[in-house]
Amino acid sequence: MSRFLSNELSKLAPYVPGEQPQDKKYIKLNTNESPFAPSDEVIKALNKEEVSKLNLYSDPEAKNLIKAAANYYNIEENYIIAGNGSDEILAFIFKAFFNSNKGVACPEISYGFYPVFCNLFNIKYISVPLKEDFSIDVNDYANICDNVVIANPNAQTGIKLSFNDIKKLVSQSSERLVVIDEAYVDFGAESAVPLIKEFDNLIVVSTMSKSRSLAGARVGFAFANSSLIADLNTVKFSFNPYNINRLSMIAAQKALEDREYFKFCVNEIIKNREFIVDFLKEEGFKVLPSSANFVLAETNVISGENLYLKLKEEGVLVRHFKDEKINNFIRITIGSLEEMKIFAQKVKKIIEEYKI
Amino acid sequence: MSRFLSNELSKLAPYVPGEQPQDKKYIKLNTNESPFAPSDEVIKALNKEEVSKLNLYSDPEAKNLIKAAANYYNIEENYIIAGNGSDEILAFIFKAFFNSNKGVACPEISYGFYPVFCNLFNIKYISVPLKEDFSIDVNDYANICDNVVIANPNAQTGIKLSFNDIKKLVSQSSERLVVIDEAYVDFGAESAVPLIKEFDNLIVVSTMSKSRSLAGARVGFAFANSSLIADLNTVKFSFNPYNINRLSMIAAQKALEDREYFKFCVNEIIKNREFIVDFLKEEGFKVLPSSANFVLAETNVISGENLYLKLKEEGVLVRHFKDEKINNFIRITIGSLEEMKIFAQKVKKIIEEYKI
Repeated sequence: MSRFLSNELSKLAPYVPGEQPQDKKYIKLNTNESPFAPSDEVIKALNKEEVSKLNLYSDPEAKNLIKAAANYYNIEENYIIAGNGSDEILAFIFKAFFNSNKGVACPEISYGFYPVFCNLFNIKYISVPLKEDFSIDVNDYANICDNVVIANPNAQTGIKLSFNDIKKLVSQSSERLVVIDEAYVDFGAESAVPLIKEFDNLIVVSTMSKSRSLAGARVGFAFANSSLIADLNTVKFSFNPYNINRLSMIAAQKALEDREYFKFCVNEIIKNREFIVDFLKEEGFKVLPSSANFVLAETNVISGENLYLKLKEEGVLVRHFKDEKINNFIRITIGSLEEMKIFAQKVKKIIEEYKI
Repeated sequence: MSRFLSNELSKLAPYVPGEQPQDKKYIKLNTNESPFAPSDEVIKALNKEEVSKLNLYSDPEAKNLIKAAANYYNIEENYIIAGNGSDEILAFIFKAFFNSNKGVACPEISYGFYPVFCNLFNIKYISVPLKEDFSIDVNDYANICDNVVIANPNAQTGIKLSFNDIKKLVSQSSERLVVIDEAYVDFGAESAVPLIKEFDNLIVVSTMSKSRSLAGARVGFAFANSSLIADLNTVKFSFNPYNINRLSMIAAQKALEDREYFKFCVNEIIKNREFIVDFLKEEGFKVLPSSANFVLAETNVISGENLYLKLKEEGVLVRHFKDEKINNFIRITIGSLEEMKIFAQKVKKIIEEYKI
């Protein structure tokens, strides 16, 4: 820490992304990336001609990209803002609407970035316990006056909320904002985007990083009432107007337009998830019911941390979290069927060694 | 404005980027882009194979990119951070080091974003007058206890400070930070990067948007003592760890490595600047002595605003600022020689019409 860092930031504990070791080639099942390349339409569109135009700024209003999103989600363009990944979109939301008086409530286990934004922007943070089975009971939020941020399906657990539960959550109070982070929604939950016309206190966040195979392009969205979107644009234009580069803008537009490939990828992931869930259950694992592109699982044969370390030795990266309630689990990103089979084989081997 | 926007942001006046009208094809001399395509090495590197990997996250530590910058600037890698354009880097700096107690002093005419960041993050802002001739006198900063941000060459005026002036500025007090924004430094000023080893209160900011022909890729840097860089990384990892996409990272790396093409582009811009300065002076314009890829010029024949409007009618976009001291000027980005000749021809025509 330098002597110039502002006092209020001196205890900042940054988000720790999944490791990206460079020592050897791993099967990467630790950062919820798609195992599939982007759509061929993306690859075709990012040609030499487009690269040659990188001397020109990107469109700060991201018009073509927002038009593609409006078309896909069937909503008006002024109900949408695009960002440099959904992390930036979330940062804009936290900065715009939450503060030290009216803070934000989140499930105790969720995307680890929510409390980090609260530290960064001096926002009151409330942790709401999950139920015994790791699910969220929306009734627990009925009396909360602060704003609410929930990932659906929830991060780390993969457990989804129903459309009706989201509607209930948003209806509990019109005096607070509800943010639904739908990073993983395409893998088995229902989107709340249609509710934004009915409720002016709902923001839905989405990303191109998972189901659209564009983690490396960094594009995310918020969908909400036009006055909320206008506020988010005020923050964006006060922070980084040209927040999305030219090539990512085109990539995301083309990925949204290619609905067939999107469906193919999502269906494959769901099939591979079923394969690996069946395997893990056969091996005696407890597996949380996932609607995402990852599963959280634990066994009583070996601790989560040791299983993570053993798998890493075997060339397979999964994610282990130190949070008390899930520190015996590992989180496995759903990869290709081949990757899932190698993972299964390695797990079987490790489990058998530990059983002896 | 929605009813949910935090009170502290209710008076936020966002930055207004240069216009990007879509009604017809303009000669764009309004946003200081390079008229030259990126290096062939950039175009070669962003091939189908790289685009196919967009399903994978980019390196949050931007190792290869930072290595290329370290190599070019001849400094250690832990003295460098990369961002999603220098606007994001500036935002991180303002957020990390400036606040309502210890704010920031900037020249009254400079990059319009500095006061916007101050509004966004509730930072005390001090405007320091320029001299009569629009230059900066570093002695005016001698007794300022707040931090200092200065663009060199200065934005809008194009006037540079010498290396010794920068050194004097940094030496005036070790108790404040000095940020030198070198967006335009390659077009005729001397970089202060070598000073960061000597002074732990200096941050130098640079961008790939101007002299490297990568405005549309969005990559910028800060160079400073490793403890300042560590603080900026703390903010970055609390805001958006994957802040640079995969393709821009490669593009910026390749652009830094191609020193020949960089020199060629910079030399062409300098030649074209001389051409247009000579022309404007012949036409009776007052032209500020620019060391940047733009010139600020005024005539007593037609107001800055009207000249801007007339040029726009003629299909040439320049930038006009409403700030009192420069509202009779227009700012002309230095384009290709062909663009400069068309600009000159249009100006001549407009001036002759007005003289009658």
